Amino acid sequence: MNYEFLINPREIEQKSFAIIESLTGLGNTPEDQVIKRAIHASGDPEIRKDFRFHPAAIDRGLAALKNKNLIITDVEMVRAGITGYAGEVACAIREEAVKRKALENKVTRAYQAMMELKERMDGAVIAIGNAPTALLAVIELIKTGVEPALVVGVPVGFVGAKESKELLLNCDVPYITLLGTKGGSTIAAAIVNALIKLSRTGGK
Amino acid sequence: MNYEFLINPREIEQKSFAIIESLTGLGNTPEDQVIKRAIHASGDPEIRKDFRFHPAAIDRGLAALKNKNLIITDVEMVRAGITGYAGEVACAIREEAVKRKALENKVTRAYQAMMELKERMDGAVIAIGNAPTALLAVIELIKTGVEPALVVGVPVGFVGAKESKELLLNCDVPYITLLGTKGGSTIAAAIVNALIKLSRTGGK
Repeated sequence: MNYEFLINPREIEQKSFAIIESLTGLGNTPEDQVIKRAIHASGDPEIRKDFRFHPAAIDRGLAALKNKNLIITDVEMVRAGITGYAGEVACAIREEAVKRKALENKVTRAYQAMMELKERMDGAVIAIGNAPTALLAVIELIKTGVEPALVVGVPVGFVGAKESKELLLNCDVPYITLLGTKGGSTIAAAIVNALIKLSRTGGK
Repeated sequence: MNYEFLINPREIEQKSFAIIESLTGLGNTPEDQVIKRAIHASGDPEIRKDFRFHPAAIDRGLAALKNKNLIITDVEMVRAGITGYAGEVACAIREEAVKRKALENKVTRAYQAMMELKERMDGAVIAIGNAPTALLAVIELIKTGVEPALVVGVPVGFVGAKESKELLLNCDVPYITLLGTKGGSTIAAAIVNALIKLSRTGGK
């Protein structure tokens, strides 16, 4: 077996990004770096065309992360995928109170988990990789005056994901999204990790 | 906002699977159910054509899961995504010993993490969603006589992922894989969760 590419993890990553750049023509703007990391994490260069960034997304996101503001995720997978963050990453979906209230209120657990954290959302970076209903909860909270720094809204699937992302585009909040049915925890975590890295290097 | 699809999480899932079936023509064989759950988790119906199942994959996998055998994952994200399993799910990548030995041996942490668990691999279900080098480690261990029940090998990316999956096809072990660059933790967890569900219902 050829061990060559086992030797240097950093080299594997550099080679991978070089291939992604040659496949997509993406460069080194902060937006392009975010997209490249999402492609790196999904193996899917086609997602490039469906990324949308609010004009203030990068600035507001990097400022919040540099300041170690709270990151809120919809599911534990996204939380587990966020690496090397000096601040707190919170996820309420497995809390007993959330399970109970979701049943009582006849909503999804993901929806209830977001509602549960609404008092902590101002200034936070919210990362939604799984549940369209979590993104709908956040959009609803924003309409009532909650002010996250950034919403990374990339829920996945065939029921509600596309629609919830279109609502996000029309919401008064800095956002990063990937239109259509694609998304997922891996992509959500990759976007946040790219921003964490950029926040350390001052957006370079 | 239309809350209709917030009301019943089970209904969201049923609707989603109905859409996937109409898009892909997939049915209800165990293999099709695994693929449908991976599409559900990625929002990407195109992955269908690149799935490959070893003829014994379903039987061996379901038997191991029914028996609550160990599940081993390459990264914490895959572990976090596996839900409702009555047995143990292990991942060594964040262990201090693994970090140290990876540096000493000049291999990736993912490779070292698999080597670390080799004594526990016989009869285990191994799920690799991230690192091609983790899959190479497992293939190497199998050649030395280690006998997992099933290898779910869906590492992602542009350097080594495709190659590692082709090696898996030629390896004497029951496997489930997704050829090419696509894969990821979300898909790995979805495959395992589909098998866990099938193991409870006797493959129906």
